[in-house]
Amino acid sequence: MTAETQAARVYAGRTAAGSVRMVDLAQPLHPNIPSSPSHPGYKHALLRRHGDAVRVDGTSGANDLLVLGTHTGTHVDALSHISHDGLLHGGIPAADAQGTGRFTAHGVESIDPALLPGVLLDIPRALGLERLEPGFPVGPAELAAAAALLPGGADAIPQGAALLVRTGWAQLWNDPHAFISHDPGVPGPDAAGGAWLAAFEPRFVGSDTTAFEHIPAGEGHARLPVHKLMLVERGVPIIEMLNLETLAGLGAGRFDFLIAPLPLTGATGSPVRPLALLPDLPALPAEETA
Amino acid sequence: MTAETQAARVYAGRTAAGSVRMVDLAQPLHPNIPSSPSHPGYKHALLRRHGDAVRVDGTSGANDLLVLGTHTGTHVDALSHISHDGLLHGGIPAADAQGTGRFTAHGVESIDPALLPGVLLDIPRALGLERLEPGFPVGPAELAAAAALLPGGADAIPQGAALLVRTGWAQLWNDPHAFISHDPGVPGPDAAGGAWLAAFEPRFVGSDTTAFEHIPAGEGHARLPVHKLMLVERGVPIIEMLNLETLAGLGAGRFDFLIAPLPLTGATGSPVRPLALLPDLPALPAEETA
Amino acid sequence: MTAETQAARVYAGRTAAGSVRMVDLAQPLHPNIPSSPSHPGYKHALLRRHGDAVRVDGTSGANDLLVLGTHTGTHVDALSHISHDGLLHGGIPAADAQGTGRFTAHGVESIDPALLPGVLLDIPRALGLERLEPGFPVGPAELAAAAALLPGGADAIPQGAALLVRTGWAQLWNDPHAFISHDPGVPGPDAAGGAWLAAFEPRFVGSDTTAFEHIPAGEGHARLPVHKLMLVERGVPIIEMLNLETLAGLGAGRFDFLIAPLPLTGATGSPVRPLALLPDLPALPAEETA
Amino acid sequence: MTAETQAARVYAGRTAAGSVRMVDLAQPLHPNIPSSPSHPGYKHALLRRHGDAVRVDGTSGANDLLVLGTHTGTHVDALSHISHDGLLHGGIPAADAQGTGRFTAHGVESIDPALLPGVLLDIPRALGLERLEPGFPVGPAELAAAAALLPGGADAIPQGAALLVRTGWAQLWNDPHAFISHDPGVPGPDAAGGAWLAAFEPRFVGSDTTAFEHIPAGEGHARLPVHKLMLVERGVPIIEMLNLETLAGLGAGRFDFLIAPLPLTGATGSPVRPLALLPDLPALPAEETA
Repeated sequence: MTAETQAARVYAGRTAAGSVRMVDLAQPLHPNIPSSPSHPGYKHALLRRHGDAVRVDGTSGANDLLVLGTHTGTHVDALSHISHDGLLHGGIPAADAQGTGRFTAHGVESIDPALLPGVLLDIPRALGLERLEPGFPVGPAELAAAAALLPGGADAIPQGAALLVRTGWAQLWNDPHAFISHDPGVPGPDAAGGAWLAAFEPRFVGSDTTAFEHIPAGEGHARLPVHKLMLVERGVPIIEMLNLETLAGLGAGRFDFLIAPLPLTGATGSPVRPLALLPDLPALPAEETA
Repeated sequence: MTAETQAARVYAGRTAAGSVRMVDLAQPLHPNIPSSPSHPGYKHALLRRHGDAVRVDGTSGANDLLVLGTHTGTHVDALSHISHDGLLHGGIPAADAQGTGRFTAHGVESIDPALLPGVLLDIPRALGLERLEPGFPVGPAELAAAAALLPGGADAIPQGAALLVRTGWAQLWNDPHAFISHDPGVPGPDAAGGAWLAAFEPRFVGSDTTAFEHIPAGEGHARLPVHKLMLVERGVPIIEMLNLETLAGLGAGRFDFLIAPLPLTGATGSPVRPLALLPDLPALPAEETA
Repeated sequence: MTAETQAARVYAGRTAAGSVRMVDLAQPLHPNIPSSPSHPGYKHALLRRHGDAVRVDGTSGANDLLVLGTHTGTHVDALSHISHDGLLHGGIPAADAQGTGRFTAHGVESIDPALLPGVLLDIPRALGLERLEPGFPVGPAELAAAAALLPGGADAIPQGAALLVRTGWAQLWNDPHAFISHDPGVPGPDAAGGAWLAAFEPRFVGSDTTAFEHIPAGEGHARLPVHKLMLVERGVPIIEMLNLETLAGLGAGRFDFLIAPLPLTGATGSPVRPLALLPDLPALPAEETA
Repeated sequence: MTAETQAARVYAGRTAAGSVRMVDLAQPLHPNIPSSPSHPGYKHALLRRHGDAVRVDGTSGANDLLVLGTHTGTHVDALSHISHDGLLHGGIPAADAQGTGRFTAHGVESIDPALLPGVLLDIPRALGLERLEPGFPVGPAELAAAAALLPGGADAIPQGAALLVRTGWAQLWNDPHAFISHDPGVPGPDAAGGAWLAAFEPRFVGSDTTAFEHIPAGEGHARLPVHKLMLVERGVPIIEMLNLETLAGLGAGRFDFLIAPLPLTGATGSPVRPLALLPDLPALPAEETA
C-alpha cells in the first residue's frame, strides 16, 4: 500500500471538541474478495439501472440486490458464532438459543456500538518484517515484543480495550488465493497467544486475517482454540479481515476505536466498518507513512 | 417507546479525551421490518446451526446467509441512486457509470466515513404533536419552527452538517403497514422544505421515514423532488429509516454525528448504523426521557 | 384466461410413437407473483447485461442472480416439508434428518421424475361456477361430483395417479392480494376431502392454490390437516400453485402427467413445470376452449 | 458411475399408451457442485427447521432459501444469454431487450416445453475412450464417427432434434476442480463441430460440460464461437452440465427427449431436469449397463 492509497483511508472528522483523524479499518466489498470456504461470499447485482423505469419528473432510480454471509469482508463474530460441547458463552445451550431460526441469545445485535481504547499490536514491525509468513504462530513472545513498542509498553495496555493484532495479511486482500492461503496456512495467535491477550480482559480482539487463529499448514479450520477462548469462555467478540495497514503506517499504537455492527437480529456476525480515531496532528510527511 | 427501551439505545463511550454518550440512530433488522415495494427486503437464514458439524475439539460454528437490498432498514442513499434526464450528480451520464454492472462513479463506497456536526429538526415537537400525520408536508415554516427550538435558532445551524428531520414515524417501525403507509401517504420535506435545508449546504440529510420526501396520499413515489435536489443537484447523500426517537427524547438538538457506510463497491446505498455522540452528562431522570 | 392465451399454453410434442399435445401446468415466475408470507418470494436480477463486458470476438453475455424459496410459484412439497410431533413420514425423527443443515431423508431429490396417469377433479365445473368462493371447503361431496364428470366416474380413477383438484384460483395469479386471500380464506380440500383423495392411494396430489388445504376465513395456516395426512401419514408429495385453467378448458379429465422436480439435495420442495400430455387430437374450436 | 447408481437414474413411467423408461439427464444440485466463475453458484439454507415453530395441531414446517444463478447445475441457455455486436438472435438490439431489468425478448420463458427426438453423439465411445482429454476439440470427424454408431448413421439424424454430445465429463461432477478444468481446458465442439451440428437444424444442442465449446488449455471463455453460432445466429438453445453417463451406459443413441425449463420471466437461462424417454424394454443385465 502506497502513501497515496493510505492517505485515501484517513478522513478528517470534526466534533464539538475539536477535529480528529479517522482511519478506515475495513476492506472494500466486491464480488472477488477473499471468502472463507465455510461462509457465503459476496454477490451484488444492480436490480434496476437508470433508464429501466423513468418517472414523470425525469428521475430514474437504480438499486441493488445483495447476497452475503455475515462473516464476509471485514466483520465481527458475535458470541453466538461458536459453541463448545453444545454450550454458548455463559453456559446457554445452543439448541435453545437457535431454536427459532435465529439466535435469541448472543446474536450480533447484542454487541453494542462501542467507542473505547484501541491498541495495535504490530507483530511484523516488532519482528522487522513486512508481513508474517504463512502459518506463523503468534505467541506470547511475539505479542510481548509488539507491546514493547507501545508507549508505556505492555503495562500501559488498558483493560476493556480493543486489541488488534496485525500480521500484515491485509496486503494480500486483492489476491484471494494468497489471502485464504489454504495449503500453507495463515499467521495468527495460537492458544498461548490468545491467553496472553485474554489476560487484559479485552472488550474486542481482532486481526487482519480470515480467522483470528494460528492456522498451521495443511490443517484448515479443524481446531479453533482462540475462538473457543474468546467467544465461548471469555465472551469477547472477534473482528476479522481488518485492514490494519494504514494504521500501522501512521505508527499509531494507541487510538480511540469505534465499531457499530449492523443490528442483524439473531445473526452470528455482521459486516462492519470500524474506525480508529486519532488526534488531528499535522499531516505526517509521506516518508513516515510509506 | 418507553424510557426503558430508550435507555437501552444509549451507550457509554470512552475516549482518550473523556467519556461520551452514544445514541443509536439505527432500526434493528429482522425479516418483518417495513420494506419499500421498490426494494428487496431482508432475508436471514442460519446456514449452519450448532451441532450440524462438530469439530474434533468440541467446537461447532453457526453462520448465516443474508439477502437484502441496499435501501433496507436504516440506510444511506449514494449519489448513484438517482439520475435526472440520464445524468448523475456532476453531469456524469448514468449509462457510462453503470456500464460494468456496478457504479464506477458515485457508488456508496465514495461516501467517506464521517464525523461532523449533527442537527435534529424535531418537527412534531415544534408542532406539539407526538408524530406527524400521514401525508403531512414539511415545508419551510415547519422546519423554521423546529430550528427555533435549537440553541441559537436557525442561525446556529452550521454549514456542512448532518441535518436530520424527525417526523416521529420511527414509532411505527413494528407496524410495517402503517410505516409504509401506501394509501394515506407519508410525512416529509416537500420541495420547498428541501430547498430550505439545502441552503445550509449540508453534508448529509436524513429522516425517519421510508423516503426523504413528502409522499401525498395516493401518489406513492411517482415524484421525488427532494431526492433529485439532494442526490443529483447538490450531491448530498440521504439517510432514511433512522430512529430519531431516543435522540428526541434526550432533547438533543445538536450533537456529533457519526456514519460509516459499508464500502459496497459500486452500490447505490448501504445499510448503516449511525450514531449521535453527546457529552456524557449525568443520566437524565426517567421523566425527561419518556 | 382467453382462448388465445390458453392456446399459448398447449405445445406440440413429437415422439417415436406419434405426436402429443403438452399442456403447461406451471405459472410463470416474476418478482410480483403471489407469495405465501411463510416463504421467500422470487427475486431476479440481471447480474451482467450485454455490453458490460465484451469479448474479443464481439460476443457479450448476460446472466442472472435468483433468490427464491422452494415453495415459490408452481412447486412440489417434499415429504421433509412437514413433520408431526417431531416425526417425518415413516417415523423418521425430523431432528435427525435435518441435523446437517439439509435433509438426509425425504429431501425433494428423493421425488423421482414421474410419468403417470393424471386426473383432473374440476370442482367449479361440477358446481357450475367459474371458480370457488374464498374459504370454500372441498369435501367428499364436491370431489365425488367432480369425479362423476370423468369418463367412467370415480370408479375409473386409478390407484397411483396424480390427482389434481381445480378450484379456479389460478385465474387470480396476476392479483396476488386476491390469490393469497389472507382474510377471506382460500378454497381447498378439507380433512374429509383429503381422506377421500387418499383412498385412491395417489402418487401425487395437487391444486391451484397456495396451500393444498381448505383455509377458512381468518384462520390462515394455523392447521394443515391435509398436509399432515398426505406428507406425514401417506407419503404423498403435494403440488401447489398449479395452473389448471388450460387443462380444464380442454375438458381433459384424464391425461398423462409428467413432473420432474429439480434435484435440490436435502431441500423441502422445488419449483416445477409439470405437464399434462394428451393425445394429439385435431385442434379444438376456440369456443370449446374459452 | 457404477451399474447400481446408473440404475438409480432410470425411472419407470406409465402412460395411456404403455410404459416407458425415463433416464434422468440432470446432475444433482448441492452447495459444492462445480460452478463457472462467470456465474453464481448454488446456496441453500433451511430458513426454518422442524421444531422452530410448532402449530396447534402438532405439525411443524421446514422450508428453504435458495440463491443460485440460472446457469447453475444442469441448465439451458436462453437466446438472450449471448449477443454479438450488440444484437441478439433475429437482430434484436440487446440494449432494447434488456432495458427494463429483464429480457422482453428471448427470455428463457420463451423456450416452450418440448418433447422431441433426441440423439446421443457419444464421442468417447466412438474413440474408444472412457472420456475425452481436457482441451480436446470435438470436430466434424469425431462427430461423424459418433453418428456412425447410430442406427442408420448420420443420415438418420432427424431435423429439429435435440443433439446431445457426450464427452464423459459428467464423471467428474463430484470433483469441481477437475470438472471446471480451468488450466488444462475442457473438451467440446469447436467451430467446425458446431457447424456440423447446425447443419441438422437442431431444436436444442447440449453437452455434459460447463460450456458447450471447445475450451483450449489456458484460454478460458475468451472466445465462444459455438455459443455465437447457436444462440445468436441459429436461435438454438444450449443445454449444459448434462449427465449423459446413464444414457450412454444403456447404449441409447435415439430416444424421446423432454425438457421443460422453469418459466423465469426475462431470465437468460434456467436450471432444468431433462429426461430421455425410452421404450420399456426388459431390464438390461447389469454388465451391459456398467
